Amino acid sequence: MAKTNNVAVLMFACRDQLGIINTITSFLLKYQGNIIELDQYVDSNENVFFLRLAWDLDKFQIPFEDIDKTFSVIAKKFDAYWRVKLLGSDIKTAVFVSKFDHCLHEILWYYQQKECLIKIPLIISNHPDLEYLAKQYNIPYVFFEINESNKLSQEQKQLKLLEEYEINNIVLARYMQILSKEFVEKFSNKIINIHHSFLPAFVGSNPYKKAYQRGVKIIGATSHYVTSDLDAGPIIDQDIIRVSHKDSVEDMIRKGKDLERRVLIRSLTYYAERRVLVFRNKTVVFA
Amino acid sequence: MAKTNNVAVLMFACRDQLGIINTITSFLLKYQGNIIELDQYVDSNENVFFLRLAWDLDKFQIPFEDIDKTFSVIAKKFDAYWRVKLLGSDIKTAVFVSKFDHCLHEILWYYQQKECLIKIPLIISNHPDLEYLAKQYNIPYVFFEINESNKLSQEQKQLKLLEEYEINNIVLARYMQILSKEFVEKFSNKIINIHHSFLPAFVGSNPYKKAYQRGVKIIGATSHYVTSDLDAGPIIDQDIIRVSHKDSVEDMIRKGKDLERRVLIRSLTYYAERRVLVFRNKTVVFA
Amino acid sequence: MAKTNNVAVLMFACRDQLGIINTITSFLLKYQGNIIELDQYVDSNENVFFLRLAWDLDKFQIPFEDIDKTFSVIAKKFDAYWRVKLLGSDIKTAVFVSKFDHCLHEILWYYQQKECLIKIPLIISNHPDLEYLAKQYNIPYVFFEINESNKLSQEQKQLKLLEEYEINNIVLARYMQILSKEFVEKFSNKIINIHHSFLPAFVGSNPYKKAYQRGVKIIGATSHYVTSDLDAGPIIDQDIIRVSHKDSVEDMIRKGKDLERRVLIRSLTYYAERRVLVFRNKTVVFA
Amino acid sequence: MAKTNNVAVLMFACRDQLGIINTITSFLLKYQGNIIELDQYVDSNENVFFLRLAWDLDKFQIPFEDIDKTFSVIAKKFDAYWRVKLLGSDIKTAVFVSKFDHCLHEILWYYQQKECLIKIPLIISNHPDLEYLAKQYNIPYVFFEINESNKLSQEQKQLKLLEEYEINNIVLARYMQILSKEFVEKFSNKIINIHHSFLPAFVGSNPYKKAYQRGVKIIGATSHYVTSDLDAGPIIDQDIIRVSHKDSVEDMIRKGKDLERRVLIRSLTYYAERRVLVFRNKTVVFA
Repeated sequence: MAKTNNVAVLMFACRDQLGIINTITSFLLKYQGNIIELDQYVDSNENVFFLRLAWDLDKFQIPFEDIDKTFSVIAKKFDAYWRVKLLGSDIKTAVFVSKFDHCLHEILWYYQQKECLIKIPLIISNHPDLEYLAKQYNIPYVFFEINESNKLSQEQKQLKLLEEYEINNIVLARYMQILSKEFVEKFSNKIINIHHSFLPAFVGSNPYKKAYQRGVKIIGATSHYVTSDLDAGPIIDQDIIRVSHKDSVEDMIRKGKDLERRVLIRSLTYYAERRVLVFRNKTVVFA
Repeated sequence: MAKTNNVAVLMFACRDQLGIINTITSFLLKYQGNIIELDQYVDSNENVFFLRLAWDLDKFQIPFEDIDKTFSVIAKKFDAYWRVKLLGSDIKTAVFVSKFDHCLHEILWYYQQKECLIKIPLIISNHPDLEYLAKQYNIPYVFFEINESNKLSQEQKQLKLLEEYEINNIVLARYMQILSKEFVEKFSNKIINIHHSFLPAFVGSNPYKKAYQRGVKIIGATSHYVTSDLDAGPIIDQDIIRVSHKDSVEDMIRKGKDLERRVLIRSLTYYAERRVLVFRNKTVVFA
Repeated sequence: MAKTNNVAVLMFACRDQLGIINTITSFLLKYQGNIIELDQYVDSNENVFFLRLAWDLDKFQIPFEDIDKTFSVIAKKFDAYWRVKLLGSDIKTAVFVSKFDHCLHEILWYYQQKECLIKIPLIISNHPDLEYLAKQYNIPYVFFEINESNKLSQEQKQLKLLEEYEINNIVLARYMQILSKEFVEKFSNKIINIHHSFLPAFVGSNPYKKAYQRGVKIIGATSHYVTSDLDAGPIIDQDIIRVSHKDSVEDMIRKGKDLERRVLIRSLTYYAERRVLVFRNKTVVFA
Repeated sequence: MAKTNNVAVLMFACRDQLGIINTITSFLLKYQGNIIELDQYVDSNENVFFLRLAWDLDKFQIPFEDIDKTFSVIAKKFDAYWRVKLLGSDIKTAVFVSKFDHCLHEILWYYQQKECLIKIPLIISNHPDLEYLAKQYNIPYVFFEINESNKLSQEQKQLKLLEEYEINNIVLARYMQILSKEFVEKFSNKIINIHHSFLPAFVGSNPYKKAYQRGVKIIGATSHYVTSDLDAGPIIDQDIIRVSHKDSVEDMIRKGKDLERRVLIRSLTYYAERRVLVFRNKTVVFA
């Protein structure tokens, strides 16, 4: 997308009916909002209408902070689920890692690109190993030792820290801990995980080993929102790579690193650009 | 797309400006037209707005044959290039072939699927070889022997035949003749060719041989509108397949067949569903 | 592979040890056998050595029918599992179909290519629908009505017919019946099935519907040898295609057809060229 | 490949003839060399035989430094081009960069993986910008300001530096200078370049801009050995990514970064594992 600063994004869903786009574009036109991107989709099975609309705020006659109030009148008519966001705002993201460096490495490299919309004020880990990487980018790295007995109390401390840093979203960059139901529900559809398999194949631990044992000819990676069901949340993106009988589990792990990084960054970009809507455990991704 | 019968499609392009979508959706709303799909794109370099809009005619209050008149008033305001088509109409397509059977075979198989929107009333060839295939589908197959001296006169006869069959579009399914400039201009952006290379690499004849000689590790196929510049028209779709040092020219030809078929059918589908707009030798494909 | 006529192929597996390749190539050299292709692989976890060796019989000093006797002395030394086949022989293949035409259509088109090594003397179906296709290629099409009560008795008749036609291999080209354990064991590692999912995801019936419900972003197809465990046999090949929220179950079915055809033909080619070895429910594919 | 330490690799090419593999494996067997990987290929057009053979030195009865002498007798019989290398030796690689960080970043991340066989003792640049990255990995970064008048004299200094550091190979990681013919010939088939297009399309500068202007639907990246013909050397690997009308030149540049990194690392891995043989401006890659 060409313009990314001073751009508003509307994400909108309601029962499909006549006049939705017309009503919303009338609102934009009335206040001189020039449309940058408009994507819509109708789920004809469920009769639900989805919209993503990005418009230029430069000449828009309503200050951003007042848009919600004005737009809520329209949204009410359609009994819609909706949000208006300033592109690049509210994406203070905490990265959770364990010992694998590849995803964190990639996120941090991505983070320093000028086109990156995400802010990363905090890295949390259950291992001290990757602190050196955080230091290279001057990002606080907080180590929480986690064992069976202290898991919930450590989560409480993590939550407090996240609040302190005003974190809105979390990326699990190969974080090798399962978050509690309570934790997950506090960040509903705001925690992105990268799972190193082509879900729903090989849920849970050691997917590359399971893939090797099954003798698959393609391995995958899947990014999804975390829900309280393990590896069963709404899928955002997937990708694959060919393997053969020559590939050992270690080869798959190595090749998979490239895959996991790619899928995770693509999902983060979709997320940061407000392209992902969730409906009944599935996503609409206006890519 | 779920619904395909009794559906109108608007393809629309004009200088980008405020209020285009709002004006068009106001027109739809006024006459009870329910939007099935809306895709838009702004080329911000060229400041051009593109739209594809499909709507349900079931409850639409203007008979299809009167839509053009009513809509032309709107289009004039925006100084737009536009067309409104009934989905599945005006796609009487002639297939031109030579000796290779794979593309014709695929088109005919595709043609008999119930979801196919294209009609194929005529097959033209410069060789008699594939008549047996045409017969299996009960489609007239007309053989025009072509040599250097009779080419233009044979084209005249072909044009007459195309007129007789009320053909709107042509697919060159590995037709091994270069059409004259005059012929091409009569079917501007209405002739789809499949070229067996990843254009713009390997323009012209024997692309697999050239690919083999260059030692590429990937071969491609490209579908494009035919213009008077050889293999230089607007690209509709491309796809690729890996090759290695093991692949001879013959292997590439064999593997390429699969590729060519796939790209050609995908392009035909886009074309039949009115998803392709052309602007300055490039396409906007609302896939 | 360039040369395919009068070519012998050895498929060989044994415990890894010193001197295997040297011993086998000594045998070839002794009788003037020029190697066309040699592929080997050592599974270092299981300590098993695999070999595929294709050589030219034109100047080979042992008549093909005597090779087994001479070679068996060598094979015994290594306590090997092995077979020597004349390329293009012993691949009388029966195609089993139900109502879907795309896989049968593709196999028959592939079958008539001059490079095809497979012979198809028989098509068996539990529906009469596709007989017209068989007729186009002059292949007997035998219809067996199958219901819950007659299944095993019909299988007995099918087996008798297969014997009569000297069938060595079977392709299930979207055959919508589960073969009995007895039937499967008669054709161990000789029945190739195409399953319309990315196995092990979506085993069993309606995989596209399950994929749609899970909201995957990629769908797949898998070819595998049939074993008595449903969709759990050794995987030969897999491939995938991207889907999005826009794709209905019907769209997936349509897109999947292309995928299924491609994977099935690729597997058949590997099979016909004797490139597939099976070991403990996994394949070594010397592609 | 499982074992990588104390492994010898033979790369071998000669006119195809009877007995090559047998003679070489006899040599291995005689001295107790256990084969880890054997790949062979016969170019039947050119009648050339290619071999890559990796074997375990643990129990091999010839010390590595004496292998050349013993093997040369065999090689002479076949009038072969050949080399025997200890896996992981002789790959002191200098990375040349300009201002783009993505390829250097990736190489350095790859370099610190335990499975990486390449050593990077030196980074050379015509810009000072990326010194900070070199510092993170404690690798000397030498900046040579280059303009039209000093180019050849600076190259002389670079060559001296390369000699000092005993550099065997060079990677051009988006180095925006064309090396002189003299320089290139000193490192024949030892300089790997990553070109940001699907060669032979879009040779030279600004390939993404050219791709955008042509309206391609797929962009690519190509790694190749550098020869004195610009972007015309033997291709090692290629890969692609889909683009659409939505992608600006900037989007292509951004998406291409991922592609370039992937192709470059894959080529470097092939190179480091001694899997690439060059013959008449084409490569045989035993991947």
